[in-house]
Amino acid sequence: MIATEFIEHKKNGGEHHPDDIRTFIMEYVADQVPDYQMAAWLMAVNFRGMSDAETIALVDTMLHSGDVVDLSMIPAFKVDKHSTGGVGDKVSLILAPLAVRLGCVVPMISGRGLGHSGGTLDKLESIPGFNVNLSKAEFIRLMQTYGLAMCGQTREICPADRKMYALRDVTSTVKSIPLICGSILSKKIAEGIDGLVLDVKTGNGAFLSEYNQSQQLARQLQSVGQHFGLKVKAVISDMNQPLGRWIGNWLEVREAIEILQGGGAEDLTAVTVYLTAWMLILAGRESSFEAACAVCRRSLASGDALDTFRMMVANQGGDVRIVDQPGRHPQAAWIKPVLSDRAGYVHAIQTREIGQLTVELGAGRMTIHDRIRPEVGLEVIKKIGDQVAPNEALAVIHAADEASWWRAADRLREAYQIRETRSTPPPLFYETF
Amino acid sequence: MIATEFIEHKKNGGEHHPDDIRTFIMEYVADQVPDYQMAAWLMAVNFRGMSDAETIALVDTMLHSGDVVDLSMIPAFKVDKHSTGGVGDKVSLILAPLAVRLGCVVPMISGRGLGHSGGTLDKLESIPGFNVNLSKAEFIRLMQTYGLAMCGQTREICPADRKMYALRDVTSTVKSIPLICGSILSKKIAEGIDGLVLDVKTGNGAFLSEYNQSQQLARQLQSVGQHFGLKVKAVISDMNQPLGRWIGNWLEVREAIEILQGGGAEDLTAVTVYLTAWMLILAGRESSFEAACAVCRRSLASGDALDTFRMMVANQGGDVRIVDQPGRHPQAAWIKPVLSDRAGYVHAIQTREIGQLTVELGAGRMTIHDRIRPEVGLEVIKKIGDQVAPNEALAVIHAADEASWWRAADRLREAYQIRETRSTPPPLFYETF
Repeated sequence: MIATEFIEHKKNGGEHHPDDIRTFIMEYVADQVPDYQMAAWLMAVNFRGMSDAETIALVDTMLHSGDVVDLSMIPAFKVDKHSTGGVGDKVSLILAPLAVRLGCVVPMISGRGLGHSGGTLDKLESIPGFNVNLSKAEFIRLMQTYGLAMCGQTREICPADRKMYALRDVTSTVKSIPLICGSILSKKIAEGIDGLVLDVKTGNGAFLSEYNQSQQLARQLQSVGQHFGLKVKAVISDMNQPLGRWIGNWLEVREAIEILQGGGAEDLTAVTVYLTAWMLILAGRESSFEAACAVCRRSLASGDALDTFRMMVANQGGDVRIVDQPGRHPQAAWIKPVLSDRAGYVHAIQTREIGQLTVELGAGRMTIHDRIRPEVGLEVIKKIGDQVAPNEALAVIHAADEASWWRAADRLREAYQIRETRSTPPPLFYETF
Repeated sequence: MIATEFIEHKKNGGEHHPDDIRTFIMEYVADQVPDYQMAAWLMAVNFRGMSDAETIALVDTMLHSGDVVDLSMIPAFKVDKHSTGGVGDKVSLILAPLAVRLGCVVPMISGRGLGHSGGTLDKLESIPGFNVNLSKAEFIRLMQTYGLAMCGQTREICPADRKMYALRDVTSTVKSIPLICGSILSKKIAEGIDGLVLDVKTGNGAFLSEYNQSQQLARQLQSVGQHFGLKVKAVISDMNQPLGRWIGNWLEVREAIEILQGGGAEDLTAVTVYLTAWMLILAGRESSFEAACAVCRRSLASGDALDTFRMMVANQGGDVRIVDQPGRHPQAAWIKPVLSDRAGYVHAIQTREIGQLTVELGAGRMTIHDRIRPEVGLEVIKKIGDQVAPNEALAVIHAADEASWWRAADRLREAYQIRETRSTPPPLFYETF
């Protein structure tokens, strides 16, 4: 394997032999291929793409670069959900206990906040005591006993993906469809799952904002995932405005609890129900999608799934008192509404900007050394299509201090586009593959 | 400057602000931008290109990353020639003394063999004692006294280009037109020249084999060079077969001496005359191109320019006896013709393959540790359009031993395409800008 020729082949639009992809990546993991050659190849892939056969070789190599969790001793269907990330997307926190309550086994390994979007691990850690760093043995024990665990990737899972991802992050090669596909699927397959529901976001708050890219990603995730024997459902859902009403780590956990209690915002409920219903279909728990949706709605309304959530919190060392009495959690010091300076209807929301300003309030990290403030964030009051009067609140910002509140408030007002005529809200879902 | 955003901007097809290019490159030279970020950016440039304004910023930054030779104390016009490289191209060895003989001052800083193509420094070093490593002070002294020196780049000239070139070489990002343009012009402008003739090769032995790429390079070299106050002539010439009859370091020096004595192959003479005539025009020594060509032809026929060549060899410590008696130089141990196995006409020659097999005979380096054998190479007997009888020689290989002769002979026969009907030889020149 001559690395320069390998890079040249992709640069010229060629298709790699699967063995060459395997060799190149394994030599990279073994520090025999230097970062700069991997960086050049990643950028060439960004421009030239990869076929399904190449992407399969990528997934297979990354998957087998580390440990693969074996859950075959559990007879039930193991199913997970992955979202490409957005703003206010706390669906996992609701969906995982709901799906387990309804008979699935959910081995959910999640990530941290990235760029303008939040991460499930950061949200869970806003529950005092909650431990997301499970050993492989502990993870397997929880899966066998309770059918549910929510934790982070161990050092042993997909080291090739971890090394490549860190490089992609600093070389502007994150947004390549086959590379995204490889990264998602290798980590998810390593969990030991049988089925996977993929929520590919599209719109101005998604990582891939162009619709045809979301389509390509959904299709490639499905076809490559199926090659590995997974049952896969890929859904394209909207991210042109925040999902639900709350953004920020603890604020999102509180909203998830509200939904699990049978209340909460309808858009968030609908998206959660839709994705969980597909998990039930993949798992063979339901045969009709409509019936599956009805089962999910009923379970949420009953508040039963909150018990499963509470159990999971307890299993992982979290303080369950805060689940039952969310008011015990500390609040931000500076909570004030941002008022509209005009009348009209919300036409559009710059969702990425909303995510970014929440990160800068302290809900995310701008450098790897930043500590997250679990209590900061915002409550979204006005969404697309809503009427707004002058001095009516667009959102309520929860800030650590007055200065950061003002910075965020100016940006928030800028992120709202208000027009005289009423706009139709975007649909929640676009396509299902 | 956030390097990731800089890379992203080029990836997305944006044009950089000149200050951003300057900052990125200078931070790279200072080891503040790592190799992997430069590699990703270089690959993005490979796909997206650069405008003239961006390329000017690139040249300017690389030029001022190191020493610039000041020859302004020499009143005469300083002019050089650069070729993008090919097989059997020993034009510089003839052109430099010829142009000096005809009144120009030629500060020629050259390179070594690269890939399948030879390098002027390696050729000059086949003359026993010849020193290509001149200090800047020695270079300036020779220019002031004799108007001619041929040497390698000092460590002080364009360190940014040297660092970037080494990275491009191992990341498959050599063949980008603005990067080639930047590399050539920064080094040539650093010589202290007033004018530059550029010989851009096209065809199957050139680095850029596609004609429209050669055109783009010629145009960008000219427009960017002119921005720096240079008089620039760019010529596209043929590299679909070796130039002249000989390939290999000492063998090419011997052929250059033959031309300087008034003999030698017509194609090599014609290309040398054409390029030297443009140097005389740029220098204002002649006003009519036809007259300039005639002056060059007459000078070569007279053998006068050989004196200038001999003087240059003596100035730089070379053994001048070998210039006058080339037979004194050691010969290869295994010199035998390669015979054709069929009758017909030479239709095409895989020129890159001819260059490559010569490198593998020992005329070039396959790794940076290889030592060059000055006496190996080959004599090209049959060129495109020539009639060939069975058992007639296509070429004569000069090899170090029998085994390497046989390896080369098989590849050489493969590189000749022989057909029943006669083909027209390609023109020597295509376009002049």
